[in-house]
Amino acid sequence: MNLLLVLAHPDPGSFNAALAATVSEAATAAGAEVVVHDLYRDGFDPRLTAPELRGPAFADELAGRYARDLLAAERLVFVHPLWFFQVPALLKGWVDRVVREDVAFTLDENGAVTGLLSAAAALVITTGNTSRDTERRVLGDPVTGFWRDVVLRPAGVAGFERLAFTPLRGSTDVVRHAWLAEAQAAVRALLNEA
Amino acid sequence: MNLLLVLAHPDPGSFNAALAATVSEAATAAGAEVVVHDLYRDGFDPRLTAPELRGPAFADELAGRYARDLLAAERLVFVHPLWFFQVPALLKGWVDRVVREDVAFTLDENGAVTGLLSAAAALVITTGNTSRDTERRVLGDPVTGFWRDVVLRPAGVAGFERLAFTPLRGSTDVVRHAWLAEAQAAVRALLNEA
Repeated sequence: MNLLLVLAHPDPGSFNAALAATVSEAATAAGAEVVVHDLYRDGFDPRLTAPELRGPAFADELAGRYARDLLAAERLVFVHPLWFFQVPALLKGWVDRVVREDVAFTLDENGAVTGLLSAAAALVITTGNTSRDTERRVLGDPVTGFWRDVVLRPAGVAGFERLAFTPLRGSTDVVRHAWLAEAQAAVRALLNEA
Repeated sequence: MNLLLVLAHPDPGSFNAALAATVSEAATAAGAEVVVHDLYRDGFDPRLTAPELRGPAFADELAGRYARDLLAAERLVFVHPLWFFQVPALLKGWVDRVVREDVAFTLDENGAVTGLLSAAAALVITTGNTSRDTERRVLGDPVTGFWRDVVLRPAGVAGFERLAFTPLRGSTDVVRHAWLAEAQAAVRALLNEA
């Protein structure tokens, strides 16, 4: 089983980095092969270029490799903080440049979408400081809508699960360890999904 | 009247660039002073850094200048395409790095927000290829929620208007000229708002 893990956090000592390490270890222990896109460490450039806007070419080799990894993945995991109740700019750029028309999906002249990804399911793990209730009631759960309805389902990924760990600010070690265990369990469930 | 115009499109020949030029001309003709953040042309880096995550410093001079311009602005205009029903990564990075805690707003220990911007109103102009009805019904109007409820109102900007020009793909010159005229009228209304 080939699992692609995408991490977007600038601090290697962050809880997001710890979550990504836990995901990677749990997946490896369960027999999966893990490919990591550590967007900050890799120096990925999130700015979609004008030539990329005109067709499915890639302006740099890293984006092309990222796209090949995405197309080959059987399971997807995204780990990121919520900044303004959305993905960090760097991860939005991974979507803009990699999950593109004629790469991850096609559009026919009527606007009907055909997904090109082979991954059966995705897991999104977020950290934030606002209650899930506020996120859902006040804002309509924007990051679930973004990942599930806008990015993944149109690209052909049917399964979706989200873990939202909040509030991160002020959380104790006990709470953080429980969150890491929850992430481990979710990765095992992801690998067992049909 | 000091108007800040933020543009995020990689192609200087795009309709987005034409919209930005029209906004700038209409505002200047109405006596406003226009400051432009052309994010692609300026080479802005949208990646929030680890030190920026820890406090209100800026990792480069351009982000610091952008923040000073934002704090000085009396009116705001954003012109951008919709990519995955959201702002381009580069513009998300402008928000992540410039509209920051202790720069554009403060949070007290109870999570209450105080906005620090002096702009009275903002105008967001977007281009897309999907009907507004789909955007609203299927997705809950995510970009209006992002700009109005998540970014601008917490930062202290009360007035909000959005123009959504769609579908851009296949639109005729006649339609585009009507859209440019609509943008001009919206800028004049923005400058007249109390």
